[in-house]
Amino acid sequence: MNVTLHGRTAHYRTVTFDRRRNSVLLIDQRRLPHRFSVASMPDFRATAEAIQQMVVRGAGAIGATAAYGLAQGARAFRGRDLRKFSLHVQTVFRTLQSARPTAVDPVNAMKAVCRAMGAGVTVEEQQALALAAAEEFADNDVRHCQAIGRHGVKLIRRHSRILTHCNAGWLAFVDVGTATAPLYAAQAAGRPFHVYCDETRPRCQGATLTAWELSQQNISHEIIADNAAGHLMQRGEIDLVIVGSDRTLGRTGEVANKIGTYTKAVLAARHGIPFYVAIPLSTIDWTLRRGFDIPIEERSESEVLGAWGVAGPADGSRKRKPGESIYVRIANPASSARNPGFDVTPPELITGIITPVGLLKPKELWRERHCLGYGAADEALRRE
Amino acid sequence: MNVTLHGRTAHYRTVTFDRRRNSVLLIDQRRLPHRFSVASMPDFRATAEAIQQMVVRGAGAIGATAAYGLAQGARAFRGRDLRKFSLHVQTVFRTLQSARPTAVDPVNAMKAVCRAMGAGVTVEEQQALALAAAEEFADNDVRHCQAIGRHGVKLIRRHSRILTHCNAGWLAFVDVGTATAPLYAAQAAGRPFHVYCDETRPRCQGATLTAWELSQQNISHEIIADNAAGHLMQRGEIDLVIVGSDRTLGRTGEVANKIGTYTKAVLAARHGIPFYVAIPLSTIDWTLRRGFDIPIEERSESEVLGAWGVAGPADGSRKRKPGESIYVRIANPASSARNPGFDVTPPELITGIITPVGLLKPKELWRERHCLGYGAADEALRRE
Repeated sequence: MNVTLHGRTAHYRTVTFDRRRNSVLLIDQRRLPHRFSVASMPDFRATAEAIQQMVVRGAGAIGATAAYGLAQGARAFRGRDLRKFSLHVQTVFRTLQSARPTAVDPVNAMKAVCRAMGAGVTVEEQQALALAAAEEFADNDVRHCQAIGRHGVKLIRRHSRILTHCNAGWLAFVDVGTATAPLYAAQAAGRPFHVYCDETRPRCQGATLTAWELSQQNISHEIIADNAAGHLMQRGEIDLVIVGSDRTLGRTGEVANKIGTYTKAVLAARHGIPFYVAIPLSTIDWTLRRGFDIPIEERSESEVLGAWGVAGPADGSRKRKPGESIYVRIANPASSARNPGFDVTPPELITGIITPVGLLKPKELWRERHCLGYGAADEALRRE
Repeated sequence: MNVTLHGRTAHYRTVTFDRRRNSVLLIDQRRLPHRFSVASMPDFRATAEAIQQMVVRGAGAIGATAAYGLAQGARAFRGRDLRKFSLHVQTVFRTLQSARPTAVDPVNAMKAVCRAMGAGVTVEEQQALALAAAEEFADNDVRHCQAIGRHGVKLIRRHSRILTHCNAGWLAFVDVGTATAPLYAAQAAGRPFHVYCDETRPRCQGATLTAWELSQQNISHEIIADNAAGHLMQRGEIDLVIVGSDRTLGRTGEVANKIGTYTKAVLAARHGIPFYVAIPLSTIDWTLRRGFDIPIEERSESEVLGAWGVAGPADGSRKRKPGESIYVRIANPASSARNPGFDVTPPELITGIITPVGLLKPKELWRERHCLGYGAADEALRRE
């Protein structure tokens, strides 16, 4: 999407590849929203480290990064021995996989690259096919997000007031994003609307990443404390909720997403406000039979006990010198914290799921599973 | 309640009076939870400034501070001229009132002191009566909180897991607190239980003040992000919710309290978890007919856009005194925020209201209004 730097606006993707330098280029998300910079990863080990250190995060974005990283590693191989090349590629695969061992997207992305490489008969051919497959993976990610935008834009009316939670925006994908895709599509259609960004404690991805995305796109928005959404709904100030999903159960329609999502769904149901979940097909889990069985990561308590920010005046003044974020301890020093990272929203609280192939009721996912298999959806979108 | 400093435990009240020095002593709540200190206010102007600068906050605590401040000001008068004395007392009254102009407790407290002074015929008599009345006001505040504890303790079973929101603890009153009173009573009864403290963004009074109170009392507790309560309820990990109230409508049973209270009530109702509100009688509003008409203060956006905390070892920028809080900007620099400070919970979501005179259904407040008038309740408690 667009980023404006020093008064000049340019289009960026979260992840791109520099063929000449054989480098993976990543928007450094650890510095956002306080500083925008693009980091260049000179080799596959640096790319793996970038995934591990959260320079890049989000399902689609780390998938594409791993795909590019695999191509980058393959292209760095010197020689014609296919067996040695294959062993080298296995090392690259394992290195990138171990950077975020629980994530499914990097593995799926790298498997797609490996499949494509299989068609080559020389090292050189396989290297070229690897990069082409990585580019294809990234382009597909963008196409899927754009398709979510096309379907989701129908939900946004003129002057809609939309609540978002966490960041399922373009920074979490290669471009466009999932929960944000309908917003960007509505803006492109010239429709005025307003977004309330849940700050999304404890990591505040709403206040930092989503708010940054929306301000770069000049979309009208305000940040609210997670506590405030219920009050705004009660006063009739929210018309629609759109969130993303970390894992959606294809068999039940249950949605695991950032902690707090369930609360917003309960509130929306009480007030009769439509609650939509935008999902990339890669996050549908076709095997698990109960949302209760989704493992809920218990994250570091330091996230709850403090916050990261830039030191500056408390008076609301926007003037501050550029600087690194620092961690401050907010909480009582002698207290500890619980920090579940995700929660599970049951299908009866979800008005609809915005997929790249259309709007579905949560219970329709299983019926439509043959259109929602990742490969099948790819085909359908390519034919459009 | 108890505070342990350097290994020694002593009993403190939030507000006390030093007769010999004619000083008001206040626990400095701006420094908590990172540093505990008691500030001495040498004259009524300093006491007013302490209220204004939030050295002391909370309904009961600022009521008692104003009462002591009025007695302090009266006692500083030199001379025998009752007319001059009366003019002086008026100045003191206005100075203390203007420190927190929207608060009702300081005015009510000072009116009680003035009424008591009316029985004196000399300046000296009136000065003595003023201090006695202020002490009586503070003792009454404690008695009311203790009574809330006696009634509320019945709700807590062995191993109950209790959710709290914000701070309606002893720091907000002279001692004991309202929402915390049943906890302290259960501990005194030897009943084991666990408390989840909502951190209560944006000002984090749960993570700072309530957590500090509970750790000083050695009560088992953990801080959670406001987003996490729904998940814990869904997993059956919360048995009871107790919150405080800033204003309770006697005619409807609606409760205005810290932003986020309504959300917790909606979640508790969905999960069939009892939701109780502990109230001091002074916060019952007998005149307003609709919760919708309660003015909801829109507070500074800087509260949502950042946080106060103590910089950790990661901050090499400059040496700070131990425990010194700084403000960090968390949010995207170009974004603004909405910050409603309170919300209104309707009576159908409230299981019961814990008052100093007993447990009531929200709709029973009006029927029982003759027992709930502040003076009447005072009488009843004195006779106990």
